[in-house]
Amino acid sequence: MSGKLQQLKQQVCSAIDQSKDKLHQLGTAIWRCPELAYEERQSHDILVRIFQNRFSLLPPRNSLENIWPAAKLNCRTPVLDYSVFNWQVTVLGTPAEEDGGGKIDLLREGAFEGLDVVLMAHPSQEDTTYIPDVAEHDVVVKYHGRASHASAYPWEGVNALDAAVMAYSSLSVLRQQLRPDWRIHGIIKHGGVKPNIIPDYTELEYYLRTPSHRDLATIRAKAEACFRAAAMATGCEVEVLFAKNEFYEILRNRTLEDLYEENGKALGMKFITDDSSGSTDFGNVTHSAPGIHPYFYIGSDALNHTEEYTAASGADEALFFTLRAAKALAMTAVDVLFSPSVLERVKQEFTEAKLNEERGLRNTPTKEDQVESSNTHTQ
Amino acid sequence: MSGKLQQLKQQVCSAIDQSKDKLHQLGTAIWRCPELAYEERQSHDILVRIFQNRFSLLPPRNSLENIWPAAKLNCRTPVLDYSVFNWQVTVLGTPAEEDGGGKIDLLREGAFEGLDVVLMAHPSQEDTTYIPDVAEHDVVVKYHGRASHASAYPWEGVNALDAAVMAYSSLSVLRQQLRPDWRIHGIIKHGGVKPNIIPDYTELEYYLRTPSHRDLATIRAKAEACFRAAAMATGCEVEVLFAKNEFYEILRNRTLEDLYEENGKALGMKFITDDSSGSTDFGNVTHSAPGIHPYFYIGSDALNHTEEYTAASGADEALFFTLRAAKALAMTAVDVLFSPSVLERVKQEFTEAKLNEERGLRNTPTKEDQVESSNTHTQ
Amino acid sequence: MSGKLQQLKQQVCSAIDQSKDKLHQLGTAIWRCPELAYEERQSHDILVRIFQNRFSLLPPRNSLENIWPAAKLNCRTPVLDYSVFNWQVTVLGTPAEEDGGGKIDLLREGAFEGLDVVLMAHPSQEDTTYIPDVAEHDVVVKYHGRASHASAYPWEGVNALDAAVMAYSSLSVLRQQLRPDWRIHGIIKHGGVKPNIIPDYTELEYYLRTPSHRDLATIRAKAEACFRAAAMATGCEVEVLFAKNEFYEILRNRTLEDLYEENGKALGMKFITDDSSGSTDFGNVTHSAPGIHPYFYIGSDALNHTEEYTAASGADEALFFTLRAAKALAMTAVDVLFSPSVLERVKQEFTEAKLNEERGLRNTPTKEDQVESSNTHTQ
Amino acid sequence: MSGKLQQLKQQVCSAIDQSKDKLHQLGTAIWRCPELAYEERQSHDILVRIFQNRFSLLPPRNSLENIWPAAKLNCRTPVLDYSVFNWQVTVLGTPAEEDGGGKIDLLREGAFEGLDVVLMAHPSQEDTTYIPDVAEHDVVVKYHGRASHASAYPWEGVNALDAAVMAYSSLSVLRQQLRPDWRIHGIIKHGGVKPNIIPDYTELEYYLRTPSHRDLATIRAKAEACFRAAAMATGCEVEVLFAKNEFYEILRNRTLEDLYEENGKALGMKFITDDSSGSTDFGNVTHSAPGIHPYFYIGSDALNHTEEYTAASGADEALFFTLRAAKALAMTAVDVLFSPSVLERVKQEFTEAKLNEERGLRNTPTKEDQVESSNTHTQ
Repeated sequence: MSGKLQQLKQQVCSAIDQSKDKLHQLGTAIWRCPELAYEERQSHDILVRIFQNRFSLLPPRNSLENIWPAAKLNCRTPVLDYSVFNWQVTVLGTPAEEDGGGKIDLLREGAFEGLDVVLMAHPSQEDTTYIPDVAEHDVVVKYHGRASHASAYPWEGVNALDAAVMAYSSLSVLRQQLRPDWRIHGIIKHGGVKPNIIPDYTELEYYLRTPSHRDLATIRAKAEACFRAAAMATGCEVEVLFAKNEFYEILRNRTLEDLYEENGKALGMKFITDDSSGSTDFGNVTHSAPGIHPYFYIGSDALNHTEEYTAASGADEALFFTLRAAKALAMTAVDVLFSPSVLERVKQEFTEAKLNEERGLRNTPTKEDQVESSNTHTQ
Repeated sequence: MSGKLQQLKQQVCSAIDQSKDKLHQLGTAIWRCPELAYEERQSHDILVRIFQNRFSLLPPRNSLENIWPAAKLNCRTPVLDYSVFNWQVTVLGTPAEEDGGGKIDLLREGAFEGLDVVLMAHPSQEDTTYIPDVAEHDVVVKYHGRASHASAYPWEGVNALDAAVMAYSSLSVLRQQLRPDWRIHGIIKHGGVKPNIIPDYTELEYYLRTPSHRDLATIRAKAEACFRAAAMATGCEVEVLFAKNEFYEILRNRTLEDLYEENGKALGMKFITDDSSGSTDFGNVTHSAPGIHPYFYIGSDALNHTEEYTAASGADEALFFTLRAAKALAMTAVDVLFSPSVLERVKQEFTEAKLNEERGLRNTPTKEDQVESSNTHTQ
Repeated sequence: MSGKLQQLKQQVCSAIDQSKDKLHQLGTAIWRCPELAYEERQSHDILVRIFQNRFSLLPPRNSLENIWPAAKLNCRTPVLDYSVFNWQVTVLGTPAEEDGGGKIDLLREGAFEGLDVVLMAHPSQEDTTYIPDVAEHDVVVKYHGRASHASAYPWEGVNALDAAVMAYSSLSVLRQQLRPDWRIHGIIKHGGVKPNIIPDYTELEYYLRTPSHRDLATIRAKAEACFRAAAMATGCEVEVLFAKNEFYEILRNRTLEDLYEENGKALGMKFITDDSSGSTDFGNVTHSAPGIHPYFYIGSDALNHTEEYTAASGADEALFFTLRAAKALAMTAVDVLFSPSVLERVKQEFTEAKLNEERGLRNTPTKEDQVESSNTHTQ
Repeated sequence: MSGKLQQLKQQVCSAIDQSKDKLHQLGTAIWRCPELAYEERQSHDILVRIFQNRFSLLPPRNSLENIWPAAKLNCRTPVLDYSVFNWQVTVLGTPAEEDGGGKIDLLREGAFEGLDVVLMAHPSQEDTTYIPDVAEHDVVVKYHGRASHASAYPWEGVNALDAAVMAYSSLSVLRQQLRPDWRIHGIIKHGGVKPNIIPDYTELEYYLRTPSHRDLATIRAKAEACFRAAAMATGCEVEVLFAKNEFYEILRNRTLEDLYEENGKALGMKFITDDSSGSTDFGNVTHSAPGIHPYFYIGSDALNHTEEYTAASGADEALFFTLRAAKALAMTAVDVLFSPSVLERVKQEFTEAKLNEERGLRNTPTKEDQVESSNTHTQ
């Protein structure tokens, strides 16, 4: 690494250290007003206020409303742009990450257009550059039957809980015929009101996942057949309500990953690999521009989405780790901007990955091939 | 009872006693050549031969072929008619009682047209004049999936056993919403070939029953929805093959029942009542003409459709009881023919029963009535 | 009916009419403060206050605490006794009728001891003297599994929703093998929290019913086997929590029923019969003393346990119908007290009914009898 | 490769070519008398006769009965040994490969003791040196209920088909909580006799598979819980009959694989890789001595275990391919015997593989680790 590059990285890290208090204030302010998905109004205002008033870099290129009109999505999220060294850096706060997939809405509205590279980091229990987050589509299923007294006149009823249970059972037997890395998992959110009434309403919530978003249509069709069949068998009406947004799998960019990991190690991070498979709305972003979505340690072993983790993420101790991740991201940006040919390689890898991903379906072995070879075995 | 009537009954009983050996020969001959449903060729020929040659009453009014052309049903059954005292008595052997419902085919072909009263008796463990035999429709369901190696490539398979199990489960949950006197019961006739192959073919066989044949369409629709939904959920093809014939419930004629019971008691029968509910193709006959279908003791406690019962029905001991039942039927025929106004009463009861049966649906309490009153209760 | 008896009934009815305002006030006061089962504190105090202060008959024989110590059941219910004509009339308000069965607690505590006859009436949509309310036992079932991420590491989970669904399915297939007048019906009260977590807790609530409480042990054993088997199959822990109280079926007393119906008709009631089957904690009472539990019309078609019925039961219009039912009960009490030999007949019928009920089990046809006759049928 | 080694391989191949007719005769003779597992008497005699009479190498070291007493296993299989160049070559015919696992019986009896290397090849549709055949244990499950007339007295029945279906369903929901490379798959072998009889007997047949035999105990416990729970829920008796033999996964020996593949390529074979997962009783052998179990093309695309494959394996065309595979095995044996240090490397790899396999369980990440990291994800 050239001395110039090294110097730039130090400057960037120093800038982050100098903004430490402001950033702490920002994080704490948002942490103090937790808001539900698509309702992040205060968080939005906090972000906008702090970036506009306290960071004296440059004024935003566009007003928020131009880039992402609040009216359209009924929520408002700050999108602030600064020009630095002839490069433009966009700080993009995004809503509804945990539920709904706000980045996908933003993507659809063009918020990521014209970006060369997108970088974000997500808190976790470990430092890891890549987790194989998969494609996902969520669905809510509502069964409507007809109530009746379950002891006196059960035969007058149309049992919506029967439908929910049959759907659950159909999806259970289906699993044998799904590829091992596909997932269908769910709950019975409403399973009846009183035992003496044949339930006239039940509700299921399911997540469907495949390693490639190109298989979501297939798993969706299979699951929907189960949901509708349960209505047919029991005489219920059914609503199969797929979520507005499909989540895509992460499209890896190993060039970026390697840079991040190198920078992180220089800052003292210890990276692990993890083959677990969740999903993130950042996946869709990585299909429109090269990007990474590393997870970072915040000083606690608590699991995400627990009360302990909420406390840990608001603790002073987390600041050090969060700023460290910010630095690793910033250093990676410096690599992309100032190291010769890096951006080119990042983009070339992205182009190839897209191409491979699109070819993916055609390269899958056909059923005929597979059945032939499968019958080789003794049993 | 008038002395004249009594005398006639004695003559009839004596005639039966005198034919004892011939009848024994007849029964034994048929017993010795058990034939499958719709394949009763030897039994047919035995019946025709014996009735034509050995009973010197009168020649048959019509040849068999005129009444029931064998070509039509691909089987041949004897229908012999004799004129007695200006009355015509028809002895009608019927095929496929246990499987398929031969009497229903005969009915469709007109074999029971013009009959005033139809009498038959069925062997059993007890003497009973009436059992509430219900309406029934049978169905065979075939699922076609796609085989694949269950360990190597299960995801290439379409599991026909999943379909069979889902249908079974759907019908099971459905039972809660069926009236307590409706029945759906069945088996999994083919449930796969080898554990290491995802089954591509399975087969269910179900019987559907309701007290009135007018509800068969409803239970059929419910069951068919379950069968088809299981195909939908699993991606299988399905064949839902309802049997050619619907069995009707017995339409009671208490005038005839009372006469039979009185005659039977005079012959030493001890009658019991039985509220169990099977089905018989004689049910359909009772909807076209007044009739009874008593069950009679044959001297054994063995259960029908067991090897023990097969032996018992061929035993010499059974002859006495069988002839006794024949006498009771014949005496009942004498009552109908010679007791003033009896036939009129039988026919009037039949007409009213038909009318009530047709009104039946309209008289059923509506759903609204029922739900209202059902909600009266504490729990 | 003697003129004396008629005169007494008129006096009783007049007394009710004279207390009309007080009774309306009483009913309205309770209606305004709906309280949950076993938490009826205000209702208790209202009842005690009004009966002690406003009805100037006689002081209570015993203080409430002596008869039914509140400490025991953590709720307080008024039990007031008056001596009339050498007869003692006890007005007994009872808690937790809809949930838990307060009368059964009272019965256990001796509150019904020494009573010759017990009369109550229950609001409904119709006037009917008897509904075949059946025996019932309720159960809550809790499954405890182990949570895990449903996409990343489902194999680390122990799925409590699988257990709930398997229990539901086991109970569904069981229904085919239950007598047609037995009932098992329930809901899935908790069916998981989030689709991405293998549920570690689920809860079922079921009601079990049989026409005779003597079969509750049998149905309970069958259901419990299903609940426990689902835990076994899925590796969950299970809690099977049967309710403290078993509800008994109503033991009929036709002598009392006929008197009530006669009195009701004289007051303009139109009685219907209803063969539906709920359950009531008054059932247990009828096994300890002769009693009736008629349902009465309150001027509305609304169904019990609906918001419309809540409104209807508080409406002024309901007062007339409620007082009419009170009069019919009171007139029936007059019959019991003053008509010669009536109480004797009531008691004799009760004794016989108890005896028959106890004999019940022994008179049920044995399995052997049934199977034999069941095999009579064609199919 | 040294010229000497090359020369030896050519000699071996020539020897096979010279025995071509004898070997064809041998194969055809066995092909003509297909025999069921553990009943291979004629095949045994053919093998013994041909090896003893027609191959004039050396007499057998031991008589068959000494090595593997037929009386023990009720079948007879030839085990013939020849000493060559101070090395001993054992030709071992094995019974019951497709059903039961005869090699496992032989292994238990000591037939593979003292062997340095074990080589076999299995016909297929392709040439492939290794397929990840997994561990397997088979089970037959028999449910015994109580028959009763399904319409008249279903409540007298104990439904063995309910048990079979509940077991099937329990195993289906269980799949969500099994590792993706574990397999449970089966059929309903007997699913009832007649729809009008509550089934009193049903039978399931299942195969359980895990990549390592060390997990068979776990999957067996889970499956057995499902089988027994279904009996508990339905009131049936159950027999859970695990097969006598557990199949082990193939323990790879890449040294041997590479040699075989090199030799095969020299003979014109085109190797593919295949990640499908069946099971073979040769797996157990590879845990007692280093071995390979390649699959070889026989000139046909027909699938194993089809009538087409039976024809293809008996066709003259198959001879060339079969002899080619025999040559590749023989050449590999030459490598082992005469190439310096090869046997040493083979044995060292075997020792290490065994050690790693035994360590396997301890190296699996603990549940706690996994759950922590699994919660990192967005969803």
